[in-house]
Amino acid sequence: MITRNIIKTIQSLKQTKYRKELQLFIAEGRKTVEELLLSTLEITALYATERFLKEYEIQDERLETVSEVQMEQMSALDTPPGILAVVKTPKPGPLKDDGMVLALDGIANPGNMGTIIRTAEWFGIKQIVCSDDCVEIWNPKVIQATMGSIFRTNIVSTDLVHFLDSVKLKGKAVYGALLEGENLFRMSQWENGVIVIGSESHGIRNNLIPLITHPITIPRAEGSVTESLNASMATGIILANYAAKS
Amino acid sequence: MITRNIIKTIQSLKQTKYRKELQLFIAEGRKTVEELLLSTLEITALYATERFLKEYEIQDERLETVSEVQMEQMSALDTPPGILAVVKTPKPGPLKDDGMVLALDGIANPGNMGTIIRTAEWFGIKQIVCSDDCVEIWNPKVIQATMGSIFRTNIVSTDLVHFLDSVKLKGKAVYGALLEGENLFRMSQWENGVIVIGSESHGIRNNLIPLITHPITIPRAEGSVTESLNASMATGIILANYAAKS
Repeated sequence: MITRNIIKTIQSLKQTKYRKELQLFIAEGRKTVEELLLSTLEITALYATERFLKEYEIQDERLETVSEVQMEQMSALDTPPGILAVVKTPKPGPLKDDGMVLALDGIANPGNMGTIIRTAEWFGIKQIVCSDDCVEIWNPKVIQATMGSIFRTNIVSTDLVHFLDSVKLKGKAVYGALLEGENLFRMSQWENGVIVIGSESHGIRNNLIPLITHPITIPRAEGSVTESLNASMATGIILANYAAKS
Repeated sequence: MITRNIIKTIQSLKQTKYRKELQLFIAEGRKTVEELLLSTLEITALYATERFLKEYEIQDERLETVSEVQMEQMSALDTPPGILAVVKTPKPGPLKDDGMVLALDGIANPGNMGTIIRTAEWFGIKQIVCSDDCVEIWNPKVIQATMGSIFRTNIVSTDLVHFLDSVKLKGKAVYGALLEGENLFRMSQWENGVIVIGSESHGIRNNLIPLITHPITIPRAEGSVTESLNASMATGIILANYAAKS
């Protein structure tokens, strides 16, 4: 039976601080929970409302029915989808020295972070490295936007200067989305290495610029006065180009 | 001087119904208002908080200072940026028979709609045709996500069956993002015509499928189990490919 104390603990998981302390996060929504049940992650509790269970069948011995009010108290989303899981935060695996790695420098918007993770998986990226100040990936809005991809991608949080230094030392390519770089559309092929994406507001930070070996640019149409593309959009367009030419 | 009645009217503009009735909409945020001031649209009122004006200088005779509380009452955004314009809804221009047109079938999420408009402008699309049931483009969240592009793009709302029928009759290409179409990455060139994008939940609707002359697909990496891409992401990736090959 769910208790007030349990609800309180789950509510605390809306905050990064408690997610880190308890090493737990919440995942909500039919699609997300379905993907979660197919993953190797450890679910510690699973709640659904009667209304949800009338529409969707979930077979799981951990499943416990809660009232609409209880669900609303626990949910971190504006519109509670009616199903919520409490999950142990997985430890990121070691970075493997193969395939293209995506590095994110200060991505702050949870929707962008989630969309980037989802799109990266579509194009075969299995490893993402985030700067320490990126939005925390176990944020409920990030999880929702990944549509399950977050459970299948190795995402590591680290110091990017140190990380890119080591990549460069190995003689690998460090691609970076910059305003003045090689025209993405004219690139003939991609070497294995890292693709660096900057933040929504500042792009790639100055301390990383000297580590970029291959600056690339998404060309804008002639006559267009748009200043920039959304950060997740830019990432997706670059990854599509990588996928098309590799 | 701003009055309670004016505030009430502006508050009503958060709803589609009143935006349509009054033929007015609100635009908020520094970047959006800057782009608005550069556009040909007719601003009927312009409000900013003192706090905003301490940080950013705005020279405009229509500018009126309001209190934080008044701004919060008028703002349609979770975090009021401190500057808000009331604008006359422009009438869409006639569709011109040149360049690629983007057609949106039932895009419902304001963030997606805005990102699509912003990205389309980046890649040189000047005309967008929306099905009647797309999210209304003068929704504050759409406007915010376009970053000003909405003021420079001709966006028409219409019956898509009728529209695509007429395009096809002219012998033009109707591209459509479908699950089984030509591999986007292998397309050698694009003809002028229309690119149709389906909604977040249902894709392109059945009644439009027979009108698609060129089904196209964004290929997924081998081994990836992601079910789909976000609708605005798919649009951006297709438009980038179009821009690269035209």
